[in-house]
Amino acid sequence: MRIALIAPLAEAVPPKLYGGTERVVSWLAEELVRQGHKVTLFASGESETTAKLVIGAPRSLRLAGIRDHIGSTLGMLREVRRRADEFDIIHFHVELLPNALFHDLAHKCLTTLHGRLDRPDILPLYKAYPEMPLVSISNAQRLPMPANVNWLATILHGLPSHVCPFDPQGGDYLAFLGRISPEKRPDRAIEIAKRAGVPLKIAAKVDDADLAYFKAEIEPLLDHPLIEFVGEINESEKQQFLGRARALLFPIDWPEPFGLVMIEAMSAGAPIIAWSNGSVPEIITDRVNGIIVDSIDAAAEAAHEASRMSRGAVRAEFEARFTAAQMARNYVAAYRMLLARASAKTSAACAAASLAPEPWDLVDHAGETKPQAVSA
Amino acid sequence: MRIALIAPLAEAVPPKLYGGTERVVSWLAEELVRQGHKVTLFASGESETTAKLVIGAPRSLRLAGIRDHIGSTLGMLREVRRRADEFDIIHFHVELLPNALFHDLAHKCLTTLHGRLDRPDILPLYKAYPEMPLVSISNAQRLPMPANVNWLATILHGLPSHVCPFDPQGGDYLAFLGRISPEKRPDRAIEIAKRAGVPLKIAAKVDDADLAYFKAEIEPLLDHPLIEFVGEINESEKQQFLGRARALLFPIDWPEPFGLVMIEAMSAGAPIIAWSNGSVPEIITDRVNGIIVDSIDAAAEAAHEASRMSRGAVRAEFEARFTAAQMARNYVAAYRMLLARASAKTSAACAAASLAPEPWDLVDHAGETKPQAVSA
Repeated sequence: MRIALIAPLAEAVPPKLYGGTERVVSWLAEELVRQGHKVTLFASGESETTAKLVIGAPRSLRLAGIRDHIGSTLGMLREVRRRADEFDIIHFHVELLPNALFHDLAHKCLTTLHGRLDRPDILPLYKAYPEMPLVSISNAQRLPMPANVNWLATILHGLPSHVCPFDPQGGDYLAFLGRISPEKRPDRAIEIAKRAGVPLKIAAKVDDADLAYFKAEIEPLLDHPLIEFVGEINESEKQQFLGRARALLFPIDWPEPFGLVMIEAMSAGAPIIAWSNGSVPEIITDRVNGIIVDSIDAAAEAAHEASRMSRGAVRAEFEARFTAAQMARNYVAAYRMLLARASAKTSAACAAASLAPEPWDLVDHAGETKPQAVSA
Repeated sequence: MRIALIAPLAEAVPPKLYGGTERVVSWLAEELVRQGHKVTLFASGESETTAKLVIGAPRSLRLAGIRDHIGSTLGMLREVRRRADEFDIIHFHVELLPNALFHDLAHKCLTTLHGRLDRPDILPLYKAYPEMPLVSISNAQRLPMPANVNWLATILHGLPSHVCPFDPQGGDYLAFLGRISPEKRPDRAIEIAKRAGVPLKIAAKVDDADLAYFKAEIEPLLDHPLIEFVGEINESEKQQFLGRARALLFPIDWPEPFGLVMIEAMSAGAPIIAWSNGSVPEIITDRVNGIIVDSIDAAAEAAHEASRMSRGAVRAEFEARFTAAQMARNYVAAYRMLLARASAKTSAACAAASLAPEPWDLVDHAGETKPQAVSA
């Protein structure tokens, strides 16, 4: 299949530093190429890929110091439009603008929504341009959206198998990984560790926006023999950090649309102790790859139970549901579903007009495994 | 002519409080209606107009607490698109997005650029979508833009004659009116007044963003018998404030694209003492409606000279060049120029194809005065 992937310009693909969406787009691009598709990646100039790269902006906008991304993104989208005939599928990973600019090509376009959708400022857009097929990254993510949008599928994110290698041994500490912010509830993580009497390592960056919160609410809690604040860690440190953890704490207090750190932990074999918000119940199979809790007491108990869970079973759940290969197969199935729908509509229209349908080039299958079911 | 005016959704048209662009759009809409055109105004639901109002958002986005305007604006633009055939001319007062969404209708669309254009984030948009005919509000405003854009005209803003009534007497103080911010240089205004020994009244709001600057740099300068800080004033207080002023100080330090306060002062008969930045040399005819200076000494001298200038001549300059009626005539001339160009292209294309041209409905003239020349 000839697939265009349109990445945000904020970061390179893959990102040099932080950037969840750009990481996922990179994994998807590489895996689609590996599965035999002809992939064109629209992304910033610092990107690296085995797909064909079309440069949408000379540098990633964050590193270029460009705060308003609209102008650059619209510029890239015009180039996508110019080449639209070259692709069977145009898959956007930027939100809002493609709905307005590509609604007349909705039969071959789709957008994966990577962010939270409970923002009143975006609803008028989706109400006005409902044609674009949308993919949510969890079913929970869809809740705030208007009823008229065109949901194509929910496709959970996947991670290449080698990024966070499986550690069958694990270790003795609880892990908190991510960003220090009120909705991630690092305070809960600390309370759980103290209640359970189990060490906690916090590997987290503190953004400028969250510095006041960190100073006032978290720093005073760190002076305790069980608590270690590691700070921000890089990708290779992350492998060891998760591999040696007894469990990942994910005590979130907001509707996180996905939560990549959960599948990173699963890949390393670490079960997850999580509050049931956002995507959590869709990612965690209770007592298989994690334990869902609703109180500090339950979480403290789970911290002990986690050390008796099978890390092999956690990794098996990862391999069955959360590899990048699986994510790519799910997307290809969604692409086919979209094209089949468009083809059916064309056939019906032609039949109504007593015309023979155009032969629809239903895409090549080279090097692909059989597509699996996608929850729609 | 059937004219659509597309206003920003940030404020009502006219705005309940501050909002330069929405005030100008309101003046233009009312005047085009008065001149006999069929005007449709796309704006937020709190707007009031003699034109036909199409509500683009139920409430102005600022009052609705919506900070990201993209979704609402794109929603409104879809409605504009749906009705595009109803209009001879579609005149946008929102930037960026119409270039991307209406470039295929560029033969009947134009955008007035109301803001400063020296922002690297907007250049990729104008480079990628150069078709849209653009109107600048001063020639100086154009400087930072790429060479390939489609400039149709420069049209200076106009003000209805009654908004700031002419006061032939004037008064004895210098006036500073607007916002306290470093680039407006209220510090220079204070220094000029002290150097000249002439009283200064400062009627200005202090935005949250400028509070630190006000406290640190300006407040300490206010404790002086010649300086009076009036704070924010409303429209009717403004009439008296400008009418009784000996001159307006406009000692700006940035490329202001227009500067409405200058024509408000002129309307009231007050000459302007200004630094030659941005639009200033296009608005001020030296020694007629103001004095252009480049130092505190020259400005202090001008403060004395201003009291001997003819306030009637200042008002005459306003009436000749800066009324809303004049602005509307200039826009109508630009609309006609745009349609004539499109018509010429159509004729040429048809001649090339040996076909008779379509009769081009060149718009009605009811109730209009003769269009005047527009500087292109």
